[in-house]
Amino acid sequence: MAEFDLIARYFTRPTNEAADLGIGDDAALLRVSDGCQLAISADMSVAGTHFFPETPAFDIGWKTMAVNVSDMAAMGALPKWATLSLALPEVDEAWLAQFSRGLFACAERYGVALIGGDTTRGPLNIAINILGEVPVGQALRRDGARVGDDVWVSGPLGSAALWLQARLGKISLSDAEMQGLAPAMHHPQPSVALGLALRGVANSALDLSDGLLADLGHILKASQVGAVLDWARIPRAENLPDTLPLEVLQRAVLAGGDDYALCFTAPVTQRGVIQAMAADLPLPLSLIGSIVAEQGLYVRDGETMLACTATGYNHFGESQP
Amino acid sequence: MAEFDLIARYFTRPTNEAADLGIGDDAALLRVSDGCQLAISADMSVAGTHFFPETPAFDIGWKTMAVNVSDMAAMGALPKWATLSLALPEVDEAWLAQFSRGLFACAERYGVALIGGDTTRGPLNIAINILGEVPVGQALRRDGARVGDDVWVSGPLGSAALWLQARLGKISLSDAEMQGLAPAMHHPQPSVALGLALRGVANSALDLSDGLLADLGHILKASQVGAVLDWARIPRAENLPDTLPLEVLQRAVLAGGDDYALCFTAPVTQRGVIQAMAADLPLPLSLIGSIVAEQGLYVRDGETMLACTATGYNHFGESQP
Repeated sequence: MAEFDLIARYFTRPTNEAADLGIGDDAALLRVSDGCQLAISADMSVAGTHFFPETPAFDIGWKTMAVNVSDMAAMGALPKWATLSLALPEVDEAWLAQFSRGLFACAERYGVALIGGDTTRGPLNIAINILGEVPVGQALRRDGARVGDDVWVSGPLGSAALWLQARLGKISLSDAEMQGLAPAMHHPQPSVALGLALRGVANSALDLSDGLLADLGHILKASQVGAVLDWARIPRAENLPDTLPLEVLQRAVLAGGDDYALCFTAPVTQRGVIQAMAADLPLPLSLIGSIVAEQGLYVRDGETMLACTATGYNHFGESQP
Repeated sequence: MAEFDLIARYFTRPTNEAADLGIGDDAALLRVSDGCQLAISADMSVAGTHFFPETPAFDIGWKTMAVNVSDMAAMGALPKWATLSLALPEVDEAWLAQFSRGLFACAERYGVALIGGDTTRGPLNIAINILGEVPVGQALRRDGARVGDDVWVSGPLGSAALWLQARLGKISLSDAEMQGLAPAMHHPQPSVALGLALRGVANSALDLSDGLLADLGHILKASQVGAVLDWARIPRAENLPDTLPLEVLQRAVLAGGDDYALCFTAPVTQRGVIQAMAADLPLPLSLIGSIVAEQGLYVRDGETMLACTATGYNHFGESQP
């Protein structure tokens, strides 16, 4: 099947009025709404690095689009358009049919039109660029956290990481437990509505892809502040076996990654607004800590402190930050 | 080297006022000028498919950016921003230094700011998205060719294809001849200034990446017209050996690809304007044929006609279109 046939069959859907010109010319043409900035982000998924060989093509399509949509959510931007650059080792029509179905299922769920891209032969590689709109000056950046801000997180953390640990044979979970965790791994649900609602409310935000500690670390570095979190308040995967070691759970929740929840900071005065938001959306929003002046990132677990680095944490007893 | 260090060292340059927010957040933020559409295009380059293993990293960087810039030229858009998604099998700092140098050499030559992207581990794959601006309604699309239009092409065709044929051992060229052809293959010069000048002058345009016949075929299909070209008028690589078979030369010029010249159609009344443009830029612009009502694509070679398909051509004697 030639490139043009492949694009026509699997990747061309009516874009209606989403773009002035969609797939089929040297470039797509679109119009950014008056008073808005264009937000653009790129995420690439590679076989063997981002997904297992046995991962269903539908799930690969959904997730690759979802992680891009999540970047729009993290900016408080409304996702609108995407391009897809796809390298394929061969034209496997069954795979393409399922992959494109998953990709469009996610795109349509979040109102994203596929307006262009490229297909070529090569080791399987999926590169998506996503574009969205945000009113000028209202984007949720990483550099706006202020001392005294609350630190919030949406949704339970660690589910995808625990699924991955079990898939890699590092921990043992039952089939039922794996099934409970699988949606977090394969079908993340980007928090677009939350991102939009946080415009003018949050001082900073990002989405959790590399793990809470590493990602919150980006906010702290960009904002030149520190944070203290409370382990007991951090929402985590439920219905896990009692036999799961606490250290495994903590590592998954704090440093696991692939959560695609939002982490954001907001003034204490916004607590009521944020709690009302949680009820409206509805979406569980958890207040997990505070921004402090002293740089560094600490997690309090009862009377002890976990000392954290960008990639993990070390128990170091009862010192205070 | 961690992803963030790699991006900081090789891919972060001051974007000045090109973007409101560049590399380092969940998304980049930029503003499209009032009255303009955003033009966006994607091109992916894969080792083994788009370049040979021995290709210098500088050349890979230049060319991958250049083929994207060329899509902006083909739309009559001013290229302004790009994202880079890069899969690397390993962190080879010498390679990265040269690759990024080539990429930025081309980007800076054409005024493009690198504002975001992604890096990951995987088989070498370079996916660029380029973004530019064009005043609303002035883009050079593929669907605007009119019966009676002149067909024009910028620059000589076939040089890169002949280099490739020799590199693959299918034809024999001297070292000096190869050196003469190599810049066309490795350092294509997108015709951005021409694309801008053609706004309001050309009825349709595209850039030649798959070969004159295949690419002009896209204009003909989108515009529902045909074309007759004159072989003698089509500019081609110079200083080639007399021993080169005509068929090899014709195949390279008509169906070779990798030219990154512009092919455009314009009303006969614009001839003077286009000839003045050629002198101003300066850039050789050749009038190579006409758009006709009867669909199909023919190349006249003296008294004979070459019957053409999207991927090549067949001699079929003296029939007329």
